[in-house]
This record gives sequence, structure tokens and C-alpha cells, in this order.
Amino acid sequence: MSNNEIKNSELDVQTEQTNRRDFFKKAALGVGALAGTSLFANEAAGEGDPNIMHHVKWGQTWGDPVDKNLYGIPSAYEHNNTRRGTKLLASGNLRASIAVAPIHESQGIITPNGLFFSRSHGGTAHVDPNEYRLMIHGLVEKPIVLTLEELKRYPSVSRTHFIECPANGGQEWRGPQFNSLQFAKGFMSSAEWTGVYLKDILKDLGLKPTAKWMLAEGSDNSEMGRTIPIDKVLDDAMLVWGQNGEALRPEQGYPVRIMLPGWEGNLMVKWLKRLKFSNEPFFAKEETSKYTALKPSGKAIQHFYANEVNSTVTHPSPEIDWSNLKDGDRVEIQGLAWSGMGTITAVDFSIDGGKNYVKANLKGLVLPKSWTRWSIMHTYKKGQVIQLASRAIDDAGYIQPTVDQETLITGVEAVYHRNAVETWEVQPDGKVRHVMVRSQLKYDKETGTMSIEGKA
Amino acid sequence: MSNNEIKNSELDVQTEQTNRRDFFKKAALGVGALAGTSLFANEAAGEGDPNIMHHVKWGQTWGDPVDKNLYGIPSAYEHNNTRRGTKLLASGNLRASIAVAPIHESQGIITPNGLFFSRSHGGTAHVDPNEYRLMIHGLVEKPIVLTLEELKRYPSVSRTHFIECPANGGQEWRGPQFNSLQFAKGFMSSAEWTGVYLKDILKDLGLKPTAKWMLAEGSDNSEMGRTIPIDKVLDDAMLVWGQNGEALRPEQGYPVRIMLPGWEGNLMVKWLKRLKFSNEPFFAKEETSKYTALKPSGKAIQHFYANEVNSTVTHPSPEIDWSNLKDGDRVEIQGLAWSGMGTITAVDFSIDGGKNYVKANLKGLVLPKSWTRWSIMHTYKKGQVIQLASRAIDDAGYIQPTVDQETLITGVEAVYHRNAVETWEVQPDGKVRHVMVRSQLKYDKETGTMSIEGKA
Repeated sequence: MSNNEIKNSELDVQTEQTNRRDFFKKAALGVGALAGTSLFANEAAGEGDPNIMHHVKWGQTWGDPVDKNLYGIPSAYEHNNTRRGTKLLASGNLRASIAVAPIHESQGIITPNGLFFSRSHGGTAHVDPNEYRLMIHGLVEKPIVLTLEELKRYPSVSRTHFIECPANGGQEWRGPQFNSLQFAKGFMSSAEWTGVYLKDILKDLGLKPTAKWMLAEGSDNSEMGRTIPIDKVLDDAMLVWGQNGEALRPEQGYPVRIMLPGWEGNLMVKWLKRLKFSNEPFFAKEETSKYTALKPSGKAIQHFYANEVNSTVTHPSPEIDWSNLKDGDRVEIQGLAWSGMGTITAVDFSIDGGKNYVKANLKGLVLPKSWTRWSIMHTYKKGQVIQLASRAIDDAGYIQPTVDQETLITGVEAVYHRNAVETWEVQPDGKVRHVMVRSQLKYDKETGTMSIEGKA
Repeated sequence: MSNNEIKNSELDVQTEQTNRRDFFKKAALGVGALAGTSLFANEAAGEGDPNIMHHVKWGQTWGDPVDKNLYGIPSAYEHNNTRRGTKLLASGNLRASIAVAPIHESQGIITPNGLFFSRSHGGTAHVDPNEYRLMIHGLVEKPIVLTLEELKRYPSVSRTHFIECPANGGQEWRGPQFNSLQFAKGFMSSAEWTGVYLKDILKDLGLKPTAKWMLAEGSDNSEMGRTIPIDKVLDDAMLVWGQNGEALRPEQGYPVRIMLPGWEGNLMVKWLKRLKFSNEPFFAKEETSKYTALKPSGKAIQHFYANEVNSTVTHPSPEIDWSNLKDGDRVEIQGLAWSGMGTITAVDFSIDGGKNYVKANLKGLVLPKSWTRWSIMHTYKKGQVIQLASRAIDDAGYIQPTVDQETLITGVEAVYHRNAVETWEVQPDGKVRHVMVRSQLKYDKETGTMSIEGKA
């Protein structure tokens, strides 16, 4: 039955009109009453501020009609909150390159589609969904070619996961190169993805027991190909067509990409055209020319998969700092934590570059293989230099290493999978800069050996 | 310490190159091998389909550079997936009107900001965030004027909630007017909102015990004002500046609106300029000219608050139907359920217009005062007429009424808070139309009385 009776009070219309007239009488006295009180507790807005004393300009005219932007756009005042292209990973042009996300402006655990970071090897392809086909073949009983409409008939799921380039933070390896959170840590974003579990399609097609690897191949001009082990395919791998409640964006592989929760972004092939199952890895082009890491032993790590437990401070940042704070102001410090191997269980926070830690608060939803937002309140002391650092822990049992600890294991040539604790220094004027705290490492250039002082 | 050692296998680079050559040899044999197998299990894509046999056109050229759209836009092929303006609620123009969301295209429980439904009483205002001020006064110990930067220093929270106009579905009251899901049920959307709980600000300001009501007033030209009871203010009311990870959109009240989880959308005042606390309701303009409902008793329901438990089928719809399905095809039926009073606990689903129900599956995250997506798999029988209907249940103990049950209580003049079960009929050709199942109600026009046959 209807709930109206229970939850809403009934009021006589006549009573209401009387009260409304009364309200207007009081409202007429309003200006005088306000002037006599001490409303203006803060200096910035102080008494007499024209922005509160006078009728604002946007309230004096009609606003825009509702059909002005049928697909809406941000306020013009937010024009600086965009992705940024960089030639950092570019082979001579900005087609095979990366555009980094403004995570200094991030809020919650969703990145709006217009700001989602983008990496491609041959530029953003524009796929006609009517001509789109997905071939699934190799070691399956019933190979198939699906149209987009056919793919969407499968039972769908929606899951919130980050995507991170394994090079996120990698350019900071030998010390900060960019005094910018966006460029230092913006090789990642997060969305609610909608699609189908690959295991549900494979139930229909019949995977042969000899299938151990899956090739995923894109239809863009780079023909990006990556090999996925079958365990991941049958665990939580998805084919996704939806991103934050609408179709995938072109930069994310419209109309279909692979989602491998928690794993390297480049494995999640975009503009997907083909899945082939085999008994051995495929060693595709981008699995040799990129996405390997030379180790001190002379061997290379290939087949990197999960992005390790990681975190960063997002507020303040070099981009949005504390220059305007007054001594004694209270302010929220915020950040993100994430792990490709599980769920964040705790975030430690430090103001002395990692010497001492306290527990930060985990905020809102804490989901597996997903961004987790954390925060801590802070009383600002004007002129004080502090070094903000965060250290995340996941339910797979991992904890972020220090820069020294990570260097010892991965060597000095590794660019990928950089998840050491990073440090952001608040300077006397409230500005923020990216610094590296590396106090204990000894690196012998002659022998190429490294040791942490006192622990070698 | 680093996880690299543990989770990644080490492979010798030389081994890998050998295997790659082997792969190319096999690939050269690929075309012949494919032609000999039966890949083309479905008729649409059949063997010889040029879209799979030839190199697609978008794979033959460079794609767009990563810096083409620093704020990204959807694929041009998605141009029909937009809001739609309507004069339905308009006072002569499309400034005081509504733009409805394309929920027939919705996925998961997030609406992208560009598609979020919009209702305004004076058009979309464009507020300069540098001139933005929020005054909080009345029955508080320490009245205050805050700049946007000052507001954002409070401890923030992110919560996923829907916003729904109480008129959602209201135009369908006497029977379907629109053969469109977007126009029938698109007066709602959902987002992850970021802001601060009002109770946290009021701890600072000191709410006087006599404060029972709060006026929220907008700075747009309609000076939209609504009165909120203090219990809601101190429960889960928020001031929000973030929407799906970026600043609020202009249509949603940039830079600050109120979020009252689960309550009528019009209460969540946009372009917020003033909060005033009082010991009595304010009876603002829009609380008398709109948002009341005349009852059969001659009295009016004012102060509606929570949107009742509700649901709808979203896939299929009049917009995206089953015309292309073949007899025996399996297809997913999907929908949304929501309640402004709590969390969805179950959704019943019917193919005979509500005579018989089975349980649908709740999908993904099930959050309080939030959209919950549900689904059920269906085998399509060509030519069969079925009437799809859903009925949601929440943890406050409510269940959606039938149209008859709701009419009995609310009368025939009520437009707001329409949450009866709705029905979507699949016709012999697979097209879908909106129908009303009202089998039992008797309405005596002479006396104005209604009864359900056999239950009067």
C-alpha cells in the first residue's frame, strides 16, 4: 500500500497561506535584523562583502533553458580541471601517448568519464558500433562472432574498479621530476564498469581443458595485443561496454574493452576485436617492446599483472595548496589508497616523511580492487614545514615499501610497478612540493650493489 | 616490502623472442585455419561478414592524439543518448522546466553528469565560485558567511544517492501519456555526491535548541526556497560540491546544493546561498504554488518528503526493444529499484502484468537511499505478448502498491509521489509499449468514491 498516509503530515491549505503572509512581514524586517548581528565570522567574507550584501548578478536574469546542453558540460569556471597530454611516453607524437587525470581535483572514488586518463599506442580509434564484431576462437568448443547487441544479451554486472598504468609514478623513480600531482600520479582513474564476466560467455562456448592463455587483441591501428593467463579469465575478467552509466568513451575502447580488476591497464585491451585461447602465451609485440623490467640479475620481469598496494596524498597538492590558510585553521588532508590484489584495510599517515605514522580514516565505500579514499583533519601551523606521506595496507597482507626498500629489490632501471611511499612537503608559505625521502640507501656504482644502512 | 618478487614470474628475454617468432609462423597459417572452422554461429555475423573478414577502416589510420579532447566527450555514435527537454512542467518557456534522463540507456547505479536530469524554476544559473558566499544564520550561536574554499575545509564525505522529482511518473497517473521510458520515468538520476554533513558544520556554529526548521534558499533568479525539518538536517543532510568525482554541474547547482538523501529533489536547493534556522516552517513560495497534493478530503498534503519505494523495468523499453530477437534467444531483462526510506531488500518480477511474481536478482552494490539494479534472464518466444512489471520492497517495510491501491488512497488529482507498479507490454513484433493494468478499481463519478471490487 501507499506510504503517503504514514509519512506525510496533513496541513490545511488555509493555515499555510496565513503563515506565508506572516513570513513576508518578518522578511521585510530582515535586512535590519541581519545588520545588527555578527554574521561575518571570517575575515575573507567580512561584513560589507558585496557578494553577500547585494543581489548577485546571476540571480538577476533568467538562467539557461533546460535544453541548452542536452549532453551537459562542466561550469566554464572549471576549465582548468582537465586531462593533460604529455609526450612522456610518446613515440614522436601524441597519438601513441598518455593524457593524465587531474587527481588533485578528484573526489570520492569515481572519475568522471571526461577526465578519465587515457593511454593509447596508435591514437583513439572511432569504432562504428554497427560494424563492430568480436571474434572468440582458439581452444573453445564453439567459436563465435558476436555483434554488440548480441554481446549485451548476456547477464551483465557492474563493478567499481580503478585502472592504473604500471608506469604511474615511474617517472619519479630517481627523484621527483614533476612538481605536480597530476603528472606524478595521474596515470590512473576509477569508474563503475558494466559488462559481462568472461566466464559466463565461456560457459556457452565451452572452453577446452588445454586452454591456458588468452590473447586479447584490439582493432585499432596498433593492434594492441596482450596475453592473459586463464586463471584470471575465469576469476573476475569482464568484457565491458559501460562506464559510469553510459557507453564506454572512445578513449577507453568504445564499444568494448577488457576489464581485469586490479591488473595493469595496458592488459585491458581496448577496441577489442578478438579473443583467442591457446595452451601457451602469445608473446605479442607490446609484451616485449614494452611492459617488461630489466632486473639487476640481467633477467627481465615479463608478465607483470597486479598493481601493488599503493596510496597518495591528493589534498593538498602542488596544484591546490595551503597558501590561503591562516595560522590555526583546521583543514582536511585527503588521499587515495588502492591495491590490485585486494581490499585496503588501513592507511598510515605521516607528517614527518614517514618516520612516524598515525592511522588515517577510510572514507565511504571500501571495495576490492578499487580506490579507497582516506582522510585526516589537521590544524595548520603557519610557517611550519611538514612532509606528508601515506602508506597503505591491503588484505592480501602487503604494505607499501619505502623508496629504499623497493630500490633494493627492483634496482634502478625499473620504471613499472612503482609503489613506494611518496612524500609531499608543505613549505613555509603553504605551497606544496614533491620530494623524495631516501635516507638509508647505499648504492655502489662499481659493483651495482645496494644496501640499506645498518640492514645490509 | 615490494610485492614484485612474489607475484610476477621471471622469464628469460631470449626464450620469449623465440616464442614470438613461433607465434608469427602460426599466425601466417591463421586465415586458412579459420576458414575451415565454424566460427559463425550466429546468422547476423555469418561467415564472410566483411566486418570480421576485412581489416576494419578505423584500424587502417592513426587515431586521435591524446590531447584532442582534454575534457572528453562521448562517441559520436552515441548522439541519441541525451537528456530531453520538455515543456511538461514549463511556465511558458524551457527555463522553468525539466530535462529528463535517458534511463533506457542507464547501466549500473551511476548516471554520468552529462545525462543527469535537470529541473529548475528559473533556468540554469552560472555562479562565479570566487563570488560565491554561503550565509548560515537564524537560531545558531555563531552565524557565519563562508567562501567556497572555507566550506571545503570541513571533513568531507562521499555518498551514492539518487535524486528524484516527486512528479516522476506523475504524468502517467490516468494512464500512459508517453510511450517512452525516458519521459515516463526519467525524472531521476543517481551520482556519487561529495560534501559535508550539515551536522558537522552545526557542531561548529552551535544550533540553538529552539531551532526546529531550516530554510534553504537558492541564489538563482527564482530564489527557490524550501523548509527542511531539523531531524533530517541532523540526520544525513549534506552540503555537496562534488558530483561523480568533479565539481557539481551548473544544472545541479554549481558550486553548492543541498543533498537530502531519499527526499524530493526540489527540496535539495541548488546554487545555495542561505540557510536560516527557525522555530517554525517558512512556507516559501514553492511550498504552496507547487509540491502539494489535493486529497479527496479537500485537504492538501504539504511537506512531502521521502520518495516512496519504487521500481521500473529499464531493458527492454519502447526506446530499445526486442524487434531483433529470434525465437528462443536468451536475453537479460533489467530494471532499477529505489526507496527514499531505506534499502531495497527484494524485487518481484512479473510477465503477466502483476498477477504472478518471481524474485529478480539484485545486482552489484545495494546501498541505502540509492538505486539498486535488478535483473532476470528470459527466453524470448517470438509472437508472445507479455506484460513486464516489477514490485520493489524496502527495509522500512514498504512494498509498491498496485495502481488501484494507490488511487484509493491518494485520489485522482494527485500527481506527486506516484509509486504504483507500472507495466510494459511486449507486443507480437517485439516492440514495447507502456500500458496501465487497472483491473479492479471502481470509480463512482457522482459521489467521487472509489473501491476495489470485492474489497470495498
